[in-house]
Amino acid sequence: MIQFHIKSPDRTIEAAIREKIDNLTKPKGSLGRLEEFATKICLIQQTLTPELRRPHNVLFAADHGILEEGVSVSPKEVTWQQLSHFSKGGAGINFLCDQHGFRLVLVDAGVDYDIPHGHGIIDMKVRKGTRNFLHEGAMTEEEFDTCLERGAEVVADIATATGCNIISFGEMGSGNTSPSAMWMHLFTGIDLRKCIGAGAGLDNDGIRHKYDVLRKALENYAGADTDRAKMAWFGGYEMAMAVGGMLKAAELGMTVIVDGFIMTSVILAASRLYPEVMDYAIFGHQGDESGHKLMLEAMGARALLHLDLRLGEGSGAVCAYPIIESAVRMINHMDSFQSVNVTKYF
Amino acid sequence: MIQFHIKSPDRTIEAAIREKIDNLTKPKGSLGRLEEFATKICLIQQTLTPELRRPHNVLFAADHGILEEGVSVSPKEVTWQQLSHFSKGGAGINFLCDQHGFRLVLVDAGVDYDIPHGHGIIDMKVRKGTRNFLHEGAMTEEEFDTCLERGAEVVADIATATGCNIISFGEMGSGNTSPSAMWMHLFTGIDLRKCIGAGAGLDNDGIRHKYDVLRKALENYAGADTDRAKMAWFGGYEMAMAVGGMLKAAELGMTVIVDGFIMTSVILAASRLYPEVMDYAIFGHQGDESGHKLMLEAMGARALLHLDLRLGEGSGAVCAYPIIESAVRMINHMDSFQSVNVTKYF
Repeated sequence: MIQFHIKSPDRTIEAAIREKIDNLTKPKGSLGRLEEFATKICLIQQTLTPELRRPHNVLFAADHGILEEGVSVSPKEVTWQQLSHFSKGGAGINFLCDQHGFRLVLVDAGVDYDIPHGHGIIDMKVRKGTRNFLHEGAMTEEEFDTCLERGAEVVADIATATGCNIISFGEMGSGNTSPSAMWMHLFTGIDLRKCIGAGAGLDNDGIRHKYDVLRKALENYAGADTDRAKMAWFGGYEMAMAVGGMLKAAELGMTVIVDGFIMTSVILAASRLYPEVMDYAIFGHQGDESGHKLMLEAMGARALLHLDLRLGEGSGAVCAYPIIESAVRMINHMDSFQSVNVTKYF
Repeated sequence: MIQFHIKSPDRTIEAAIREKIDNLTKPKGSLGRLEEFATKICLIQQTLTPELRRPHNVLFAADHGILEEGVSVSPKEVTWQQLSHFSKGGAGINFLCDQHGFRLVLVDAGVDYDIPHGHGIIDMKVRKGTRNFLHEGAMTEEEFDTCLERGAEVVADIATATGCNIISFGEMGSGNTSPSAMWMHLFTGIDLRKCIGAGAGLDNDGIRHKYDVLRKALENYAGADTDRAKMAWFGGYEMAMAVGGMLKAAELGMTVIVDGFIMTSVILAASRLYPEVMDYAIFGHQGDESGHKLMLEAMGARALLHLDLRLGEGSGAVCAYPIIESAVRMINHMDSFQSVNVTKYF
């Protein structure tokens, strides 16, 4: 299994960061969470003058065997159709990336279709969709490792080619709230029922059915009693690849903006392997998928935005970017009380 | 008294807006509040292809007689010092305006200092600070009318000169959470105690003292039993001018982004005079000043951001701008299901 070398940032610099922020021309603490994000990024970059370079949103797409069980209203073909659509522009994630200067990187992690590669879609396909985890492991542990490696490779290539130091991850995969709910349940211990929501638009009967399927899948689990075995059995190729991507990003000292429900389950899994990954994460958006709030609470995380988004694709993370940029501008561009003629006020 | 001619937007177009949004390539409703903001701006502009032109943040500054009673930790000289600072750049509102392409317009509404005008600071001074409303009306009703006129004039000039169609209002005025709390109490009926918070940084004793002062001021009220008389008695020049600015902006069909606690009390007052102003308002930020949440609830409003800001200056409104821009980009730049090869999903 691929190893990552992730260190928690050295906190020696923290007092100097605090002092700098407290001497900006504003009542102490009055820029609230901007001060929190500025501190986090200063720690990650080990500087009092941080910068955000070449933001990227890496979108992994894959299909899911569990879709056979009727756990989603989205048909399978939407996965490849939307992936193709992203490569041409005009989808939700495209206008957001354009607005905020993100480069969008598209990765076929395991789409069940012979989608043409090379038109902006990187071929990292492990298999044409996972197996149905109601009856067998969605992927083998070897496939899981392959996903980690490939996700890490994509991120390392971006860093080398562009100097990118802030990155978000998105996904497209009909049915992927089901594997996400399983990871959430397994790695937080929260009652499975509370981990299940409407996905792209299930009604109450649909949610009940989804619960029945996932509960049975849990009973049928025949893998080893390790986190890695469970991640493989119940995971998705796009999710496992994002785990590898996030871990590599943290290793390289990038700031990771976490998208919604699915990407929160991904960093939850990543943090089981390497808890230090959390020091590099800013949670962009809390959506209205049931369970997302609970999962964030379980991780001690508080999302930046609450806009009722449930699109995926990295949309919540990219939407949050300008606020993070505000935090960096604050610490770089505001005057200190010492430098201007303003009485320090509180 | 100056009259405003504010019409609620014609809702005939609403079904067409809904249809356009529901046919964008995403599950129905999955862009959450972006869809809500797009709808609101389409209604205001009466079009399916809205645009945001030349955003401005108009910052009114003034001093407050009630500051004599020790209701704030901010000394009075901070008002003019910060106003001067804004005109040179380097304050909180400056980096936010720079980031989001806002022009910052600074207005001396009633600062208690002979601040030089003409260096980017518009002279609309009514008086050197309001009177102390513990003992007498903070301003006369004639002064209140003058404020409405001057605020309206500033906004009308901006619209004529630039074609601006989206505007936010900020304030600087040591002690102005006290008049805001009074307006909130008087125009929502919420218990005065719940309308009072820490302002720029009062401790618990300070908050108790602030409550005692404001309660006595209420008892001492000797004006007429009309909204306008109460707005004048307990108001601030910067607040009254912002009332006039918001009402003119609505009359001109601009979208108004409402900042934090103080600007929420301003639009609350504005909506007592012309309820239709609410159709033009997007609430940018809910701060951590006690009472702000209650005031928003009383108005049926839900803020866009929750970042624990308590700076004022328009900072929460300007911070929210990129999300509003995302909403407008969504409706203009996303493909419809009809135009691309994607199965409609839910």
